[in-house]
Amino acid sequence: MTLRDDVRRIALAARDAARALRAASAGPARDAALLRVADLLGSPPDRTALDAANAADFAAATGSGMTGPKLDRLKLTARVLADLRQGLAEVAAMPDPVGEMTDVRTRPNGLRVGRMRIPLGVVAMVFESRPNVTIEAASLAVKAGNAIVLRGGSEAHRSNLALAAMFRRALAESGLPEDAVQVVPTTDRDAILELCRLDDLIDVIIPRGGEALIRLVADNARMPVLKHYKGVCHIYVDEGADLDTARRIAVNAKAQKPGVCNAMETLLVHASAAGPFLPAVAADLAAAGVELRGCGRTRALVPSALPATDDDWAAEYLDLVLAIRVVDSLDEAMSHIARWGSSHTEAIVTRDHARAMRFVTEVDSSLVLVNASTRFNDGFQLGLGAEIGISTSKVHAFGPMGVRELTTQKFVAFGDGQVRT
Amino acid sequence: MTLRDDVRRIALAARDAARALRAASAGPARDAALLRVADLLGSPPDRTALDAANAADFAAATGSGMTGPKLDRLKLTARVLADLRQGLAEVAAMPDPVGEMTDVRTRPNGLRVGRMRIPLGVVAMVFESRPNVTIEAASLAVKAGNAIVLRGGSEAHRSNLALAAMFRRALAESGLPEDAVQVVPTTDRDAILELCRLDDLIDVIIPRGGEALIRLVADNARMPVLKHYKGVCHIYVDEGADLDTARRIAVNAKAQKPGVCNAMETLLVHASAAGPFLPAVAADLAAAGVELRGCGRTRALVPSALPATDDDWAAEYLDLVLAIRVVDSLDEAMSHIARWGSSHTEAIVTRDHARAMRFVTEVDSSLVLVNASTRFNDGFQLGLGAEIGISTSKVHAFGPMGVRELTTQKFVAFGDGQVRT
Repeated sequence: MTLRDDVRRIALAARDAARALRAASAGPARDAALLRVADLLGSPPDRTALDAANAADFAAATGSGMTGPKLDRLKLTARVLADLRQGLAEVAAMPDPVGEMTDVRTRPNGLRVGRMRIPLGVVAMVFESRPNVTIEAASLAVKAGNAIVLRGGSEAHRSNLALAAMFRRALAESGLPEDAVQVVPTTDRDAILELCRLDDLIDVIIPRGGEALIRLVADNARMPVLKHYKGVCHIYVDEGADLDTARRIAVNAKAQKPGVCNAMETLLVHASAAGPFLPAVAADLAAAGVELRGCGRTRALVPSALPATDDDWAAEYLDLVLAIRVVDSLDEAMSHIARWGSSHTEAIVTRDHARAMRFVTEVDSSLVLVNASTRFNDGFQLGLGAEIGISTSKVHAFGPMGVRELTTQKFVAFGDGQVRT
Repeated sequence: MTLRDDVRRIALAARDAARALRAASAGPARDAALLRVADLLGSPPDRTALDAANAADFAAATGSGMTGPKLDRLKLTARVLADLRQGLAEVAAMPDPVGEMTDVRTRPNGLRVGRMRIPLGVVAMVFESRPNVTIEAASLAVKAGNAIVLRGGSEAHRSNLALAAMFRRALAESGLPEDAVQVVPTTDRDAILELCRLDDLIDVIIPRGGEALIRLVADNARMPVLKHYKGVCHIYVDEGADLDTARRIAVNAKAQKPGVCNAMETLLVHASAAGPFLPAVAADLAAAGVELRGCGRTRALVPSALPATDDDWAAEYLDLVLAIRVVDSLDEAMSHIARWGSSHTEAIVTRDHARAMRFVTEVDSSLVLVNASTRFNDGFQLGLGAEIGISTSKVHAFGPMGVRELTTQKFVAFGDGQVRT
């Protein structure tokens, strides 16, 4: 068997499994499977096999010189497993999105036309490092009635296989086809390219990881891709803003968890607010350990800031570093965001209603906030539940992708003999 | 300037124009522009220039040997122009989709979170033959707040340029940037490939035409593609169906307009209904000039039918030809559809509620009907208004794509100082 045959066989089995998962009666079985995975994660013999697989991955990674956060992310600690079990219970408890009917209206000829929510079908997910993504992604996919084909990173391959084996057992024990969750059995990079070609079998592919991986999938996939590259998030402090509020929001957005995509990377300040605001917020940020890079007008007010270059406006630092620029108007702030932003998350701090509404309307990002921290761009924080990623491309999903974004809508029509005249 | 520079310059101008079109105040101007296009289409000097351009295209096509329906589709007759003017007025009269806010809820921390409908941004449309698509596509794109880059067929190039010039004049006269509607100035095939590369500037690409064109775009585009390949539509006549209703629906779905994607191509009949039904419907269809191709059991009841092969189950005839197969159950009918269908439109004729609901739930097509003709898969018929195409891929849009499908939703959040803890 060639790799191409192997990957195609997996996708074919996924397509067949997807048919069983979207049956009207499958909703309770899908939830039962998620709860069963939570059970299996907590007890031997599956837990024992998982711990052994994860220890083997960890030892191999250590042996190959991996260290630091990347090594940490590999480890399925008791805490990580407890979080996974809680997440499974929460996803199982959500309402079943499949079969929801909306916009049902009666046409003049008596035909009742509406939209019905349905699974996407077969989802492929390509990701790096954290093996817990296997469970998180599979649980959201199955909740939404989809089959999923997973291709994780080589360093977590044994763990991914053990987690998928657990999920497959839970599916079978719940009366569902185990091929609804499959891991590509090789970590060969060509397997990604093979997945990208199967647009007759795979409905959507989701890459999650570094920019190189995402670009590889986006350039080669023949099916739709749901992705985000990076988060270069901005906060704009408007003329007349409440400066205490602005300080609290800026420090939270930068320093509460700097290594995530919804952390602020550039602070834009209206010239009339800069004089009182910048020295004060710079002191707050310095106390939080943040290094500052500023435009000329910023540095005149905050001498400790290093000079900012175009590289800083484009940077996703994911670290305790912040770029600051003084602007002369809301329009200049929005132009800066349009030029340098990544369509991820932007916020305005203002007391002016008209400018708040202009910012919300005209800034083209997946979440636009007024008087709140950029850190709220997260499925749980927005009230959507668990997410499989945050999309910064606008087609199908823009922002956190949860269970709903793993579904679509078809049209249905109920008639009593209508024909077209 | 190379072709690459040229196409990139056009897309950059479109992106800038898109920013102006999505401003909160732009809705009335967008509608005014559509109504102004309708005016210009009806009167000199623009109408005169358009007639000259269309006559030149028609003469060139005739000179190169073009005949039949393809030549007819090229001609902008008084009837076609009147329909375009009426379509523009109808699209202008639709409610503005941009800015609609839904699902607004207050989070426990007081943050009000909701979804706001926004334009996609820049739409690229690649199409063949009919020049009226220039106006139809541009009007839907602009109504939804998008800029559009059009690349039509070479045989209609002069007409497309004249129509776009009219649209650009109407935009400028309505206070909007004329670059919101642009035609790629060359019909070089490489221009399509250049468009496909510009995922930093173009948000979605829509190919419309033959399968080769759609495949070219799907294989090369780095941005999302909204498409449909073909419509192999089925009607299943269930056990116990009302056979008079089934006859009327089958004849309508096949013969009312056989050359369109929502016409029926295969009729599936439950074995218990075949005896009384098939000879009767065969007579109706023969009277309508339809040639029949059947399975063995069909031919035993309808001796005039030719033998059907696998090629017939896969065929989109777009003609007065119909494939017929006798099946033993609803499941066998649904398996046939899953194997041979194109996810476009399928209908069941039945009196049984449980089987109707199973068919509607489990058949994975953009429109699934009960007791009605497949010919209703059309934006106007479903009550959605004008459409830019019918999507048979499930991501973003599945079924007729109208104004709403040329928009997306972002998240918005209104706070009073919320930070993440």
